[in-house]
Amino acid sequence: MAHPIITLTTDYGTSDHLVGVMKGTILKINPETTIVDISHSVMPFDILDGALTIGQAYRHFPPKTIHVVVVDPGVGSQRRPILVTGDQHYFVAPDNGVLSMVYECEPKVTVRHITAEHYFLNPVSNTFHGRDIFGPVAAWLGKNWQTPSFGEEVSDYVRFSLPKPKVANNTIKGVVLKVDNFGNLITNLTPEDVPQVVAGTNFKITVGAREIDKLAQTYAHGAPGEVLALIGSSGFLEISVNKGHAARALSMQRGAEVTIVLG
Amino acid sequence: MAHPIITLTTDYGTSDHLVGVMKGTILKINPETTIVDISHSVMPFDILDGALTIGQAYRHFPPKTIHVVVVDPGVGSQRRPILVTGDQHYFVAPDNGVLSMVYECEPKVTVRHITAEHYFLNPVSNTFHGRDIFGPVAAWLGKNWQTPSFGEEVSDYVRFSLPKPKVANNTIKGVVLKVDNFGNLITNLTPEDVPQVVAGTNFKITVGAREIDKLAQTYAHGAPGEVLALIGSSGFLEISVNKGHAARALSMQRGAEVTIVLG
Amino acid sequence: MAHPIITLTTDYGTSDHLVGVMKGTILKINPETTIVDISHSVMPFDILDGALTIGQAYRHFPPKTIHVVVVDPGVGSQRRPILVTGDQHYFVAPDNGVLSMVYECEPKVTVRHITAEHYFLNPVSNTFHGRDIFGPVAAWLGKNWQTPSFGEEVSDYVRFSLPKPKVANNTIKGVVLKVDNFGNLITNLTPEDVPQVVAGTNFKITVGAREIDKLAQTYAHGAPGEVLALIGSSGFLEISVNKGHAARALSMQRGAEVTIVLG
Repeated sequence: MAHPIITLTTDYGTSDHLVGVMKGTILKINPETTIVDISHSVMPFDILDGALTIGQAYRHFPPKTIHVVVVDPGVGSQRRPILVTGDQHYFVAPDNGVLSMVYECEPKVTVRHITAEHYFLNPVSNTFHGRDIFGPVAAWLGKNWQTPSFGEEVSDYVRFSLPKPKVANNTIKGVVLKVDNFGNLITNLTPEDVPQVVAGTNFKITVGAREIDKLAQTYAHGAPGEVLALIGSSGFLEISVNKGHAARALSMQRGAEVTIVLG
Repeated sequence: MAHPIITLTTDYGTSDHLVGVMKGTILKINPETTIVDISHSVMPFDILDGALTIGQAYRHFPPKTIHVVVVDPGVGSQRRPILVTGDQHYFVAPDNGVLSMVYECEPKVTVRHITAEHYFLNPVSNTFHGRDIFGPVAAWLGKNWQTPSFGEEVSDYVRFSLPKPKVANNTIKGVVLKVDNFGNLITNLTPEDVPQVVAGTNFKITVGAREIDKLAQTYAHGAPGEVLALIGSSGFLEISVNKGHAARALSMQRGAEVTIVLG
Repeated sequence: MAHPIITLTTDYGTSDHLVGVMKGTILKINPETTIVDISHSVMPFDILDGALTIGQAYRHFPPKTIHVVVVDPGVGSQRRPILVTGDQHYFVAPDNGVLSMVYECEPKVTVRHITAEHYFLNPVSNTFHGRDIFGPVAAWLGKNWQTPSFGEEVSDYVRFSLPKPKVANNTIKGVVLKVDNFGNLITNLTPEDVPQVVAGTNFKITVGAREIDKLAQTYAHGAPGEVLALIGSSGFLEISVNKGHAARALSMQRGAEVTIVLG
């Protein structure tokens, strides 16, 4: 493979020189690399937001893509750097749970503790492992494709559960995982969690003071300003406002509760 | 052509995973593609802003560049996806007028309704056609360069007129089309609309409470904080403040009126 | 070298079409160029901020990288465009001091006044030299690598000194050069300026109303919310808040004073 593809997902923002420096470091090791930004606007230090971002994006890239994910509040502490081999993709990240959604989606993963320091940019700083460890490891992997050379397999890697819907009798409670660029409220409810909603049988969705009793097919449905529920492109139930910004219109944020009552 | 060039212009923002996913989808079809961002900060759902962005940018790219433009409030509804062939460039977009400025600038275009679903990422979602239709079509076009294979020619494509200056006696009224990153107010007035201003004969430009009676050559002219009029790099009259932010200094926004009185 | 690498550092922002147009112009001259963004969020017109951004980033790129730096409040005036050859890198920029930190870091530079107008995008505008001069010059340099063909050497190029710490008796006063994306306050103090702090001997750092008396190894040290001092990845003393945003927590901005008293 002449041109390895490396993606970057971080909470570094794009105002500073950090992302550019990571890319320079990668190109210094392998100038033939194609580098693609997934997002650098993961909420600072927010491992769940990072897990969702890479979890929703990675499968759309070609096989053998190497995904670097750096949301790393513990940089410089004892948390391990890891290299994960999934079915078709590779992941390089701190071992803090930021790959939890990848672990949920992949049928089988091999996780290695990265210990081969000759791949690092030495001396390794205590504060910028994107430049000193994660970027270089990804770049070298894109040259040699030898995962065992980076370190031993481990089984005790950190993994958390994404927030699950709570079901009680005819009531399902979900939570807003993310507000997207358009203001859509993306919940943790999948079609499997709410088959009755997808089927269109009697239901009532409550978000804040609003009630919704039907599922829309797309954002453009309904009158301008109407509050809609629909299944979004990542497979989650979303609350949206036609040509508007649901989060502002409903004064709701990440973590807000969405309740569905059936029948 | 070994490396097709695809540009992206959207209102997706760069905080979410959407742009990264579009790029992954394109690279999955053709990893040799060079992808360039024009802007992902088109104002959400704002077709005029999208039309201006691509209209000012596309001609600076190499011949055969494929421009993907996704400002698409009607995603999932009946609006058609189209593939447009201009003199030297290709465009892939929803048929909602977002290419109107391209149509104004190109001597002749061929517009096709994209119907060849085997090029799509199936099943096509109702909410993310950048990933499922526009990106894949651009990637396949960059491999086969066969525009007829994507669909039949149509002539009833959607096209709106950009706001035109109003002329009455010795008065010309223009409008602010955009506020740029520096706060400059970019109007819809071209040198052809206001030859007397360019020639420097007697005129008075009124913006809000301010009056300007000469044309500057560049932003650096005048005293710091002075309000200036000049012809900007895209060929429109701009109102600027030397080392300042005109929109904030004058409390003016997109849509504000600019009046020129001659003589 | 088949694929020249060109980096971009500007104050253009990424909302407008400007950065995309620069890239198109470069690719039109040499479609084999790899273009990498360092930052487009340099503070508008702020030459010091631009100098710091490129100064901290450039050495992490491969040898022969061409760095284009456009923070250019004097665009269209008499300030010269220059091409700088350092030990391993090239720089294309306005001659306004924006390369001052590069000059400090490089053992020897050759500075040329770019006068070869046949490399420009003609006619050259008065307002967008990123598109018309700096981008095209970088692209042509990446094809011919002949620096003398761009213009004559000059020795009177503009260079300012970065703010230096003030030392009086046992007191060292530094200044905050930048607030990064995480809110860390990056000062102008290096380990060479404050060896006693690095050695951990008696000292007291005062920032606003807070006092710090030890040096942390990394951001994760201390209790959540604790104010820390550490040596950051670019080699400057930083004030940080564990899992927090130091600039907001301390109500401090760029230019704020940091005082160290020894003993």
